[in-house]
Amino acid sequence: MSRRKPVIALLGATGAVGREMLKIIHEQNIEYDTLKLLASKRSAGSIITCQSHKFPVEEVSEESFSGIDICLASAGSEASKYWIPLAVKKGVTVIDNCSYWRLKDDVPLVVPEVNPEELHRHHKIIGNPNCSTIQLVQVLAPLHKRFGLKRVIVSTYQSVSGAGNKGIMSLQAETAAFPKKASGCFSRRIAYNVIPQIGDYEANGFTTEEMKLLHETRKILKDNSLLITGTAVRVPVFYGHSESVLLQFQSKVSPAEVRQELTDTQNLQIMDNNHLNLFPTPQDCESNDNTLVGRVRQDIMGEDWINLWIVSNNLRKGAALNAVQIAVYLIDKDII
Amino acid sequence: MSRRKPVIALLGATGAVGREMLKIIHEQNIEYDTLKLLASKRSAGSIITCQSHKFPVEEVSEESFSGIDICLASAGSEASKYWIPLAVKKGVTVIDNCSYWRLKDDVPLVVPEVNPEELHRHHKIIGNPNCSTIQLVQVLAPLHKRFGLKRVIVSTYQSVSGAGNKGIMSLQAETAAFPKKASGCFSRRIAYNVIPQIGDYEANGFTTEEMKLLHETRKILKDNSLLITGTAVRVPVFYGHSESVLLQFQSKVSPAEVRQELTDTQNLQIMDNNHLNLFPTPQDCESNDNTLVGRVRQDIMGEDWINLWIVSNNLRKGAALNAVQIAVYLIDKDII
Repeated sequence: MSRRKPVIALLGATGAVGREMLKIIHEQNIEYDTLKLLASKRSAGSIITCQSHKFPVEEVSEESFSGIDICLASAGSEASKYWIPLAVKKGVTVIDNCSYWRLKDDVPLVVPEVNPEELHRHHKIIGNPNCSTIQLVQVLAPLHKRFGLKRVIVSTYQSVSGAGNKGIMSLQAETAAFPKKASGCFSRRIAYNVIPQIGDYEANGFTTEEMKLLHETRKILKDNSLLITGTAVRVPVFYGHSESVLLQFQSKVSPAEVRQELTDTQNLQIMDNNHLNLFPTPQDCESNDNTLVGRVRQDIMGEDWINLWIVSNNLRKGAALNAVQIAVYLIDKDII
Repeated sequence: MSRRKPVIALLGATGAVGREMLKIIHEQNIEYDTLKLLASKRSAGSIITCQSHKFPVEEVSEESFSGIDICLASAGSEASKYWIPLAVKKGVTVIDNCSYWRLKDDVPLVVPEVNPEELHRHHKIIGNPNCSTIQLVQVLAPLHKRFGLKRVIVSTYQSVSGAGNKGIMSLQAETAAFPKKASGCFSRRIAYNVIPQIGDYEANGFTTEEMKLLHETRKILKDNSLLITGTAVRVPVFYGHSESVLLQFQSKVSPAEVRQELTDTQNLQIMDNNHLNLFPTPQDCESNDNTLVGRVRQDIMGEDWINLWIVSNNLRKGAALNAVQIAVYLIDKDII
């Protein structure tokens, strides 16, 4: 493919992630020939405005994919399972944000700072990892490469926007009305509450969200021996997922070594100074696309253990931005 | 001391915990001869109403402690350090909720379901453990006794009421005004945010709140070999602390065995059924004084690891109720 400007489609353009993708494409001045917004029948006909451009939303059909070079999709597993093979048949390269394709063998699962080389062996479908996985592997990858990890223990503090527009609306409405029971999209009231259940349960008692941390991280880090466990919890925060993370290394590692290694890593930012009471919170990632790391400390478990805290914008680096970064890489390297 | 009705004082009676103590004493129909409410000069002169009784708040002085049998104190470390020795000199037995005395050798640190026998060797000062410790040891104690624990890894989701009335007011005000910066008693905005810092930092990089989990649990369980680590995080919840807890045992333990052991333990309640999507959230402890346990599962780390979730009302079982339970034990056993 030559260096002509690509024709881009956004599938699921009216969702929380779709809207963020549109925003990032324009923030980053990504050049395109045409940008097509596709959504289900329900949203078709509406107009989305971005930087004073008006984009009509079209109902997705098999024909929508004719002439498209890259499709950034965030439309949920059911839609993805149906539409993506049809898009691929039309020659489209799809970067998909849902979990359906992520763990399939011929689908690279990519965080561009970590494993961009995987993009060179794609077969038209590229997986965008789960939001909580992306920020985790951004931190794990440099540490695993440098020091060797054995165990990872994660507890998450995930914002409502991880559940999409309906998650945002649930917290807004429940905060205003303060109902006794759940009134939104979550299984419990989320206003002034926390919910230790994200996704469905698997047979082992973990939720799908928790198992994504294990399976996706292993795939991205190419290490099936890594032990990763977690509890995924929804908290009443609009934007930004947080993770309390305990790491066991192959041998002794100091907090200073960890901080240095992460400081040297692209798109990570250390916010960690106890004297200044500096650490990241979700609020800090509202206008910061770096994944933020703080509270780095030698753990009580021993000299081979490090405890730390990770925060990232789940809609941007956790979803839309990561997908756009993949698209940019494909365009730049001419491997659409 | 005979079985005459005790004279009780509440020190710090106008605080969030003090008010809850007053409520619980009347809920439980605890018989007293006199009930004196003591507070700092700032709060003195006000009237607190409980079950249609009106209690005047007196300014605390050395004289306030004359004739008092039991004092339930929740006035902060500075006040506690100053007033409690004066109270003890007057013959008062003090159950204190602050951290100042808790780890001293001659101060029993008691959760009545776990180590009531410690109360028989008190020297007038009895420590009421930290809120996040109480709910943790309620779960750890029976499991440690039955199966033997090696490691405990905790991530907390602590409500704003753990910081007292000012914490409650901060979240109320910030939710209404949604300020850009912290406007209340926390170091960051707490509305729609989470804050991975509770207490001051110790030299090892852990916070005082995190180190309480280690030191207090070891003292209560009488086991200094137990490895306990944690990250303590403030979340925008009014009442109820939650804890994501990973346990490593001396040998293989099944979730069924853990559930059975905890079901058989006083004041614990298992809320754990994935088919019914049953698990506890902070909302559930608003009107339930049990410590609630859910999400019990064999962990990915191996057959000797169990992952679970604990929720409890931090103002009640985590502070006021535990102190009142101690007082009741002292009165019943005639060991004031």
